[in-house]
Amino acid sequence: MRLDVYFGYQQLIPADVAGRVVAVIDVLRASTTIAAALANGARAVVPFLTSDEAVAQSKQLGRADVLLAGEQKMLPIPGFDLGNSPGEFSPEKVAGKTVLLTTTNGSGAVLAAQGARDIVVASYVNFSAVSAMLRTAVRSGTDVLILCSGHERRFTLEDAGCAGRYVRAIQKGLNGVATNDGATACALIDRKYGENIAKLLQNSQHGQALISAGFGDDLALCAGLDSFAVVPVYSDRQIVTLGT
Amino acid sequence: MRLDVYFGYQQLIPADVAGRVVAVIDVLRASTTIAAALANGARAVVPFLTSDEAVAQSKQLGRADVLLAGEQKMLPIPGFDLGNSPGEFSPEKVAGKTVLLTTTNGSGAVLAAQGARDIVVASYVNFSAVSAMLRTAVRSGTDVLILCSGHERRFTLEDAGCAGRYVRAIQKGLNGVATNDGATACALIDRKYGENIAKLLQNSQHGQALISAGFGDDLALCAGLDSFAVVPVYSDRQIVTLGT
Repeated sequence: MRLDVYFGYQQLIPADVAGRVVAVIDVLRASTTIAAALANGARAVVPFLTSDEAVAQSKQLGRADVLLAGEQKMLPIPGFDLGNSPGEFSPEKVAGKTVLLTTTNGSGAVLAAQGARDIVVASYVNFSAVSAMLRTAVRSGTDVLILCSGHERRFTLEDAGCAGRYVRAIQKGLNGVATNDGATACALIDRKYGENIAKLLQNSQHGQALISAGFGDDLALCAGLDSFAVVPVYSDRQIVTLGT
Repeated sequence: MRLDVYFGYQQLIPADVAGRVVAVIDVLRASTTIAAALANGARAVVPFLTSDEAVAQSKQLGRADVLLAGEQKMLPIPGFDLGNSPGEFSPEKVAGKTVLLTTTNGSGAVLAAQGARDIVVASYVNFSAVSAMLRTAVRSGTDVLILCSGHERRFTLEDAGCAGRYVRAIQKGLNGVATNDGATACALIDRKYGENIAKLLQNSQHGQALISAGFGDDLALCAGLDSFAVVPVYSDRQIVTLGT
């Protein structure tokens, strides 16, 4: 079995994902927001690369059961119902709704992973639920790829640290799991920060940018280990909770 | 001033390198081989992406003062004078010669960095010489980019660890040097392995592949801190020693 971590999705080719379970990580903030939305009762989250695509889709679906959400350069999109702060996705707002989510990096990574055996959305907030699923996959002989979305084509510390936590949990007590250099590096980063996930997020460039833009509260939510026991799976162009 | 580390050169755009000093790292083995060749008296090293291009160039130059060197999938290229093992580039072989070097990742990274203010080739074997030059650049207000070549589009532990050593040396005692998340992660990796560079190389995927292919001795050479006090600079389509 293989357990690999890749940084960035832009160069992913079909052979990278074929036959694998792919876990997409965008800790700040898309992965966290998706977990929050589904845990709080959203029927589905549909990822889009651009707000225009999301708006067009919302018109097709009818607006009653649909929420437009997302960000452009961290900020909420004018005319949308919600931004990309996980705290906005409360049960009152999202229960029973389909969330059309526009984010740059997280959506791009999910869409790039199409063709994988399964695609799950991973973060700190649903760590135990998703790592159990990935561990089961590896134990049954399926290769796992953890795909760090990164930010604007570049490596991000928060995605790498989160990936490292998954790597360490999946490997624990299992022999014969081959890993790549990306997985080795991520495990080092997770070991370094240990339980201080908040510090890891604060030390990251994107964390700093969010703090500067007034979204500092989001970091605490994104660092909330196991806040939401959901396994979000992407299938048939939407992300739903596994088992529902 | 900025001090950034990027992983992979495939997505580099001109704006990433403009006005910067770019240090290209391909520890296993191109960066090391280039330093060895120049330290041992080669007049220049000319990087090529393919053996066909190198052969065509050798015919133009006349074979007397030219050596064809390089690798394809780690192995020497049939008909070439030298492979890509740094130990082959002895003074007896290379003094006064122009080396036409075909390697996949290192050559690609050097060529991708074209347009930078300066391009230097960095490794462990010429660490002190190159880090002094980069530190001077940062102190004088020039942004530095360390470009890890990686392997077949992917992150490699050995390039990241070596980059981390440079990051730590350049930053030491300087205030106000902004770094990216890549630099932060690389510094962590270097701190973890400390002086045990040989172990870092042995733990890397490409190091393992080289050992399996019979090039285990190359790892010791590539781990040889400061074996060669040269600063290889790329200019006018060839790599020469700075100050000659």
